[in-house]
Amino acid sequence: MTTPRRDTYTPETLLGVAVQIFNERGYDGTSMEHLSKAAGISKSSIYHHVSGKEELLRRAVSRALDALFAILDEPGAQRGRTIEQVEHVTRRTVEVLMAELPYVTLLLRVRGNTQTERWAMERRREFDHRVADLLKAAAADGDLRADVDPKLATRLLFGMVNSLVEWYRPHPGTGHDENQVAEAVVRLAFDGLRADAS
Amino acid sequence: MTTPRRDTYTPETLLGVAVQIFNERGYDGTSMEHLSKAAGISKSSIYHHVSGKEELLRRAVSRALDALFAILDEPGAQRGRTIEQVEHVTRRTVEVLMAELPYVTLLLRVRGNTQTERWAMERRREFDHRVADLLKAAAADGDLRADVDPKLATRLLFGMVNSLVEWYRPHPGTGHDENQVAEAVVRLAFDGLRADAS
Repeated sequence: MTTPRRDTYTPETLLGVAVQIFNERGYDGTSMEHLSKAAGISKSSIYHHVSGKEELLRRAVSRALDALFAILDEPGAQRGRTIEQVEHVTRRTVEVLMAELPYVTLLLRVRGNTQTERWAMERRREFDHRVADLLKAAAADGDLRADVDPKLATRLLFGMVNSLVEWYRPHPGTGHDENQVAEAVVRLAFDGLRADAS
Repeated sequence: MTTPRRDTYTPETLLGVAVQIFNERGYDGTSMEHLSKAAGISKSSIYHHVSGKEELLRRAVSRALDALFAILDEPGAQRGRTIEQVEHVTRRTVEVLMAELPYVTLLLRVRGNTQTERWAMERRREFDHRVADLLKAAAADGDLRADVDPKLATRLLFGMVNSLVEWYRPHPGTGHDENQVAEAVVRLAFDGLRADAS
């Protein structure tokens, strides 16, 4: 238990504390009491900023979702051959995941017990479907290998990308910088691990 | 609560019930009471078969680990070029994951709160290291693309493979059969999604 301190939080900085506790304890396992202790301010101070923990969850997953959906509006996701668009979206998704690691981690772990959780899952599926549609279009262009079903490819691609929340840490010592990781995902996913026969 | 029934379990069939409950509630969240209710037999009947829930965990994760380590002793994992060995191990790991889905799911979700859990995590890391060593050897042969670090490649490969426990279900309606999934993982990982320019 920390000594209560003067409330200098903004909704934004309070969110940083909340998302950390949600990820540690799970959203279901987090009470306003836990948030109050972690922030070092009273529950009523928290209610001064937000209506409750569900609002904190909504703000946190919105931050992740907004960053992900913004990728789809970038020029690289709208111009050129579709396969290049998918490659762009893949690279940028990895970059957003690393830049917004606690927020995307929370988004990926959410289960559907409350309305906000179900909304977050629905939006996440919508993002996956948008990428699946791009892969289907790339297949129609003849730019995707014909022996892998685009829907299955989407699952495997997101499986690989999303696994980063399990091991990527933005600290020295992991031995991988952000550009290296994003580039490795794109190279593996689109060109494969095997050296080109030449 | 089910009506207590005559105990016709063997340690093997009891394991099937236990692994299901462990995956539903988490190992920490499962009591002997939960196991007794799910199996429809008394706690003392369970103790007739096993020493307690930790023995059930050890047997369950051993089943997954034994199946995974057995892959490394197969001829396909020991003969031919190293890159072909890695491809074999990848395909067979996907097949084992699908064939032993609840057991591998439990193995991948285990956290280190008890000695058995820590042992399971250690063995799992050992398997990952064995595959990482194969990838390093394939890189030394010049068969792995030079612009992806073999250690990072191992993480991404397992990220993709292990993500199957989140969505693969061995029932009709998922739209993917086992051979198709294993082949798709190998094609994506080694040759990439992009159609070969020709």
